[in-house]
Amino acid sequence: MSPIRPEDDLAFAARLADAAREVVYPLFRAGLAADNKDAAGFDPVTEADRAIEARLRTLIAERFPEDGVLGEEEGARPSTSGRTWVLDPIDGTRAFIAGIPTWTVLIGLADDTGPGLSVIDQPHTGERFLGVALGTDRRTMLEHAGRTRALRASSVKRLRDAVLTTTDPYLFEAGEAEAFARLRPRVRLARYGLDAYGYAMLALGGVDLVVESGLKPWDVAALVPVIRGAGGVVTDWAGRARIETGQVLAAATPALHEEALALLEACAL
Amino acid sequence: MSPIRPEDDLAFAARLADAAREVVYPLFRAGLAADNKDAAGFDPVTEADRAIEARLRTLIAERFPEDGVLGEEEGARPSTSGRTWVLDPIDGTRAFIAGIPTWTVLIGLADDTGPGLSVIDQPHTGERFLGVALGTDRRTMLEHAGRTRALRASSVKRLRDAVLTTTDPYLFEAGEAEAFARLRPRVRLARYGLDAYGYAMLALGGVDLVVESGLKPWDVAALVPVIRGAGGVVTDWAGRARIETGQVLAAATPALHEEALALLEACAL
Repeated sequence: MSPIRPEDDLAFAARLADAAREVVYPLFRAGLAADNKDAAGFDPVTEADRAIEARLRTLIAERFPEDGVLGEEEGARPSTSGRTWVLDPIDGTRAFIAGIPTWTVLIGLADDTGPGLSVIDQPHTGERFLGVALGTDRRTMLEHAGRTRALRASSVKRLRDAVLTTTDPYLFEAGEAEAFARLRPRVRLARYGLDAYGYAMLALGGVDLVVESGLKPWDVAALVPVIRGAGGVVTDWAGRARIETGQVLAAATPALHEEALALLEACAL
Repeated sequence: MSPIRPEDDLAFAARLADAAREVVYPLFRAGLAADNKDAAGFDPVTEADRAIEARLRTLIAERFPEDGVLGEEEGARPSTSGRTWVLDPIDGTRAFIAGIPTWTVLIGLADDTGPGLSVIDQPHTGERFLGVALGTDRRTMLEHAGRTRALRASSVKRLRDAVLTTTDPYLFEAGEAEAFARLRPRVRLARYGLDAYGYAMLALGGVDLVVESGLKPWDVAALVPVIRGAGGVVTDWAGRARIETGQVLAAATPALHEEALALLEACAL
């Protein structure tokens, strides 16, 4: 078992995010301009997904040949070190397709206890969210425009004061949709369409609550350290810290988490 | 009657957008950091709205004392030149509150024939969309990262191929909500939460269709030149080019506009 070493591994995760930016810069909003609108069969988001994951897998294999890799695009590479890099090269493919800069590159590093550190990176805005949640070492930083600052989730404790986000209110299954319908009218305001960027906004203190379902392991791994590092709470809809059902409830404070959980847990998987 | 002179007036509109950026930079995401979370009574978005509009009104009065001003925050200043500047200092206040960089500063210039040129500006990403729609002079440009490029809406002609956006699917009135419920399942994909930034994405070619209601005159004036300058079509839900009902239908092509209009016009005001 090789332990996660937060300084070295976070620096390496940032190098991976740099490499992803180089791959994606020429692809975001490519194909939207009039001159290559009709380029048959060119699908920038599929190309970006595939090319980023291939590039990151190569870099990980060179540096940490014993670490596992779990990605959206290719099969899992088993870990012999106890450590696994979890990759979602383009989270928010629909935003990417629409030209909206709220998609992100997700990079997480997990061990047997779960995700320990992660990066949520937005190449177009240049915002990079770095999270650490290893025992008592909990911190989330935002790098942007040459500056780094520590982030802290808000102190909002009640639903009626909370800013809620979910990616698509039409994506919930039937029972989940009812739970969301109970929750939505109780919050101060709701926003949609953010994918993983919504969790980054929770770490920043702008969003107080994120409620989603259907998330894949490569989505979850990068969210958890960023939320917990900023002092937030993230569980599944049954309140379990280990999220394996794809249902995610992230809140700025334990009190807010508890109030939302009470409305959702009847629909927990 | 003073005519709109596209070169001079667009350069001045860009100067106004620069001034707005200076005001808003220190306010966006202010109050979210832990150290001033509890600053009682400080409301950054209200402060930004008020301060930007006051600053722009001063600059307009200095340069064009005969032009009118219509803004969200203060009363209308009547025009003696036949020209009116239309201002929405922060469009997308809920995104602003949540820390999400999809709010924009809207600046339009209208004469008796309607809005002739406009700016949709996003200070955090540094994206500036400039539109001209004066007779046959139609163009939309994106300034970003030191580069300027001409934009063109997509060539999508059918709902089933279209990327749709609306700010909040829960904001429609009853009859409108039914019309939207007819439209939504017919498109390729739908995104939410963008306010005026969604119209900028249509000009960019990423979004193909925007359907909204309840828009105010200071929202509409900046959208119209950016959409028409990029070759798109924008009307109210009755197909009228002059949008006075707050219902807006913007489409990348006339064929797509026609197909969407057929589903909406029964609910036109």
